[in-house]
Amino acid sequence: MSAPSTGALALTQGDPSGIGPELAIMAHAAAQADPRLPPFILLADPDLIRRRARDIGTSVDVVVCEPESATAVFPRALPVLPLTARAAGAAGRPAADDAASTVESIERAVDLTYAGAVGGVVTNPIAKEVLYRAGFAHPGHTEFLGALAEARGAEKARPVMMLWSEELAVVPVTIHISLADAPRRLTRELIVETARVVDLDLRRRFGLARPRLAVSGLNPHAGEGGTIGREEIETIAPAIADLVALGVDAKGPYPADTLFHAAARARYDAALCMTHDQALIPIKTLAFDHAVNVTLGLPFVRTSPDHGTAFDIAGKGVADPTSLIAALKLAARLARADASA
Amino acid sequence: MSAPSTGALALTQGDPSGIGPELAIMAHAAAQADPRLPPFILLADPDLIRRRARDIGTSVDVVVCEPESATAVFPRALPVLPLTARAAGAAGRPAADDAASTVESIERAVDLTYAGAVGGVVTNPIAKEVLYRAGFAHPGHTEFLGALAEARGAEKARPVMMLWSEELAVVPVTIHISLADAPRRLTRELIVETARVVDLDLRRRFGLARPRLAVSGLNPHAGEGGTIGREEIETIAPAIADLVALGVDAKGPYPADTLFHAAARARYDAALCMTHDQALIPIKTLAFDHAVNVTLGLPFVRTSPDHGTAFDIAGKGVADPTSLIAALKLAARLARADASA
Repeated sequence: MSAPSTGALALTQGDPSGIGPELAIMAHAAAQADPRLPPFILLADPDLIRRRARDIGTSVDVVVCEPESATAVFPRALPVLPLTARAAGAAGRPAADDAASTVESIERAVDLTYAGAVGGVVTNPIAKEVLYRAGFAHPGHTEFLGALAEARGAEKARPVMMLWSEELAVVPVTIHISLADAPRRLTRELIVETARVVDLDLRRRFGLARPRLAVSGLNPHAGEGGTIGREEIETIAPAIADLVALGVDAKGPYPADTLFHAAARARYDAALCMTHDQALIPIKTLAFDHAVNVTLGLPFVRTSPDHGTAFDIAGKGVADPTSLIAALKLAARLARADASA
Repeated sequence: MSAPSTGALALTQGDPSGIGPELAIMAHAAAQADPRLPPFILLADPDLIRRRARDIGTSVDVVVCEPESATAVFPRALPVLPLTARAAGAAGRPAADDAASTVESIERAVDLTYAGAVGGVVTNPIAKEVLYRAGFAHPGHTEFLGALAEARGAEKARPVMMLWSEELAVVPVTIHISLADAPRRLTRELIVETARVVDLDLRRRFGLARPRLAVSGLNPHAGEGGTIGREEIETIAPAIADLVALGVDAKGPYPADTLFHAAARARYDAALCMTHDQALIPIKTLAFDHAVNVTLGLPFVRTSPDHGTAFDIAGKGVADPTSLIAALKLAARLARADASA
């Protein structure tokens, strides 16, 4: 891909019936009072954005432009790159007919990063079940982005989800599988592969010379010496030994319950957790409204807010742009690191 | 048992080589500046307490007395009820020979509550592995207290561990078992039995007219409609229906990751969690130094600090009495409710 750009970020519309379009409008408005909020160009139907602004009782100046002009336009108007596919985008009423526009927005954002026209991709929430009805064949947003990278020549992409906030960064090693499946699916290789992606991206994008990874146990009290579960002895400790041999500063396995208070958090840069809830409980407890979902292991920068489409409140103007704003700021920080690498 | 007392609390010594003895000394000293810290009588070897005070570079006036005098003695000296069994109690060097004194301290504390001589029992940490070497046959502290209650005529005791702080109260439904065992051991009956004990004790001891219980799911996203695990549909939702039919205000199953931020916590009085880490992660993240372990379902009040014997720092004077002080204050509050019931 081309040299990374320090220009505007590409922001996707997300599901046009969800809260993505109004969050984009709100984030743009917030930028007037917050100089640290980076410029972005929204990939969406300009008419949809104007309609949604009216729905939520506000107005927005939309300027249709190319990404190269977005930074100049941004202080006075919301830069929008129009899509080919149309979207009805009725707030709160998702439609499979709109899926093409949702997908196009993501694909074009990736194209723009490859062309060096934007510094990174920030994605608004999509609804997988809506896309599935339209034939979408990827398990989720993150995997779709991995497939797009591979289609553009990346080696096998290994996207890894990290939830990030100033307080805490966590990576679930097993994610959306049943708890009964987690012990079976947790392998030494999976832990090592995941940790290597985290280590690499914390170095090259987060600017950490030697990232400190804390690895949780799977069982209560990290198995208490094998008396309540043996995965720590048979799987996790060997994975940590592999990582240390590879030069990764990985430590553990630690009991998950005592890994997230302030003094414990000061000892590592990211916690690798064996289950979804081990990772998501502490970050949503500490940083519910401002955690950011960041995808590591991709050839480009990608962040997203840590919430869903929220169809139930879409179009009402009550959605909270805090997480999207945090996602934009983090993407800009990571894009600067990419550009200077 | 006799009518509950509003007198002093009984504080056990815990393992005499752990931090219990010095925490008792520190808590007594803290009471001079904190009128909300309730009077207690320590069940321990008075010489051990004097030695430990010297170990940590302080002094303490120990007065050997009966529980009935403890409240009067407490403002000027540490009331101690001597044990029959002797304890060497070398700081940091636990000895099976001292187990008899550890056990006697617990048994006599329970006897005092049954006699109405104290308002409740606060226990310092014990080390199960030390007691096992001396023939102790109970899975843990809580189960031992249940057995003592049954030996004194209680119906089958059903002790339930709750971790409590001002911010959050949590009850793990499965506790010290491997994660692989948790789905198998989680039954509708176990959830219902546990929740009924919690509901009853939150009414009678915590003064809640209608306790609101939030029940977590077992799987990520509470199973997402059965697509990532079916325990929510087959086990947890039926248990909640049973509870509602019994008049318990139980709701759920809720995704565990979004159950513990401030706005979510405002909607319930206690969260029933399906696994150890689901319960312990959020409370140790939010209230690491001041969470209290309280046993529900016993005929008497029992609390304890939410930490272990900490042999590695015993006798050094660096232990933190915050959790013990919180345990004493909560026990006094619960004892007042018992006495006025």
